[in-house]
Amino acid sequence: MQDAHVSLAHGNGGRYMRELIAEIFVRHLGNPELDADADAVPVTLGEGEIMLTTDGFTVQPLEFPGGNIGSLAVHGIVNDLAVSGATPIYLTLSAIIEEGLPFEQLERIIAALGEAARSANVRVVAGDTKVVRRGEAAGLYLSGSGVGLRARAHHLGLEAIQAGDAVLVSGPVGDHGAAVLLAREEFGLMGRLDSDCASVLPLTQALLAVPGLRFMRDPTRGGLATVTHEISRASGLGLRLEQGAIPVRPAVQSVCEMLGYDPLYLACEGRVVAVVDAKSAPRALEALQALPQGQEAALIGTTTAEQTRVVLTTPLGGERFLEELEDDPLPRIC
Amino acid sequence: MQDAHVSLAHGNGGRYMRELIAEIFVRHLGNPELDADADAVPVTLGEGEIMLTTDGFTVQPLEFPGGNIGSLAVHGIVNDLAVSGATPIYLTLSAIIEEGLPFEQLERIIAALGEAARSANVRVVAGDTKVVRRGEAAGLYLSGSGVGLRARAHHLGLEAIQAGDAVLVSGPVGDHGAAVLLAREEFGLMGRLDSDCASVLPLTQALLAVPGLRFMRDPTRGGLATVTHEISRASGLGLRLEQGAIPVRPAVQSVCEMLGYDPLYLACEGRVVAVVDAKSAPRALEALQALPQGQEAALIGTTTAEQTRVVLTTPLGGERFLEELEDDPLPRIC
Repeated sequence: MQDAHVSLAHGNGGRYMRELIAEIFVRHLGNPELDADADAVPVTLGEGEIMLTTDGFTVQPLEFPGGNIGSLAVHGIVNDLAVSGATPIYLTLSAIIEEGLPFEQLERIIAALGEAARSANVRVVAGDTKVVRRGEAAGLYLSGSGVGLRARAHHLGLEAIQAGDAVLVSGPVGDHGAAVLLAREEFGLMGRLDSDCASVLPLTQALLAVPGLRFMRDPTRGGLATVTHEISRASGLGLRLEQGAIPVRPAVQSVCEMLGYDPLYLACEGRVVAVVDAKSAPRALEALQALPQGQEAALIGTTTAEQTRVVLTTPLGGERFLEELEDDPLPRIC
Repeated sequence: MQDAHVSLAHGNGGRYMRELIAEIFVRHLGNPELDADADAVPVTLGEGEIMLTTDGFTVQPLEFPGGNIGSLAVHGIVNDLAVSGATPIYLTLSAIIEEGLPFEQLERIIAALGEAARSANVRVVAGDTKVVRRGEAAGLYLSGSGVGLRARAHHLGLEAIQAGDAVLVSGPVGDHGAAVLLAREEFGLMGRLDSDCASVLPLTQALLAVPGLRFMRDPTRGGLATVTHEISRASGLGLRLEQGAIPVRPAVQSVCEMLGYDPLYLACEGRVVAVVDAKSAPRALEALQALPQGQEAALIGTTTAEQTRVVLTTPLGGERFLEELEDDPLPRIC
């Protein structure tokens, strides 16, 4: 790697590509299953249902306070498995790199990816890299899949939700979206706000011990508002949310006011929305609040058979409909 | 979908994205396991070793004679599982779409993807779509992972290769690379050449029945030359290839001569390179030639302990080293 930047020759299948993979990817992600010379790798799984998921990552900027596209990719995939009730085990990784990306930056990103994988106890077992010409990407895109195992006893799903259930969120909403917005130089804003980018596995494992658990989801693109709409649409029920009960950091609120966004539509990358039966709500809240990442968990509303929309009750007693996200172009937030 | 092109709002997690997924992706890829509302899906697998692989696809142009990026993605992933000795079962799919891609083209591509999946008997069970701004991609990138099952009896691998083994190829090389080059308008060439883009599963299944099978690989990026280098590097052996025995279509040879490429370095997307012990070579060749896609299969060389390089014997009795691919920028061929 004579030059300090990725070149097209690093994607051609030959020597440069082999060196790029060995010197950056394998070095940071190495584990017994990852074999850079293999077309496919054998993996072993224990007892349970095998769960599959996939996600793509295009966040801009590639690095932001609290994470980068590498740690985001691991947490995004891990979290999709976690909210399904599974324990994540293996990841695959496909990198599409723009010619000219500094090796130094690529290495920081892949190192963070490796660290996030180790801390979530998952292994990257298969990978692929492609290099595209300058102007055909924006630095780096990552896509990946995850394989996990779910105990057969856990049957969670939108279809399990009933009228009168409680809706909880594990912490303040909109941190990731606001942190990424603020990190975009174009806004010229001062101040620092960290993304909540993290594995939600401790939170989902705590919730899985609550017998009345019906459904979990991580509110990423489209934020909390979009998850509540998914719940309403799939269950045919309405939701009544208490605006004053939804945790939002003051800094996130300020950024949103300045830039004209609603924090309820901004992505989180380390939160869980959970639906539990009404009598289990105190126990679920307690389980979340007992964890460092769940201290600000809150009961934010209930499902209702009285109507079929998402209604927000304001602190002054007013009501407004929380509309489904339509034409709100906040691209490349995750 | 009022407009005929993908917009940023189709990637924001809200209503437009939901409609895009329902009207294009789920419609063409639908199967019982694919649940567009789920974070992760449960899958069932039979007996055997679970095999995982991943691949990214950035081919330009997106559509070419003999296939498009959608069918290429399925075949690329299916083939990585097939050459490992596995039967492919499930696919995941991550699409990164550039704002402005015509829906009509996206639909042709996803329809071809669905058709390729059905014909290879694999199901797309998880997916994700992201939309990036104009100028941040080149139409569409696809990444995906594959899950397959391998009978425990099959222990193939580079480490099984021994001196004196026979090297076979299942058909003419360089078709995909030459077809894509020709399809790039910038060359202004006439004529049509089809990519060999196809599942190699029938070929690998036929070879798995040959007891002396050591190793299989599909020669994609970097072509046949790159696979022979991988064999040589991993085994510490040399390879002696007969140039006259390597099948190359006359049209591919012509395109290469005009454009200054060597067909041995051009990607195939429907061929298999196999290494078998010497005494099994006739049986392996027969097994391949019995299939419609293997009629032009050939025994092209042998491994040797006498030296450690890849040597090409020319029809006139001369010899030359086949060098490892270095700075040969042929980007976005797959």
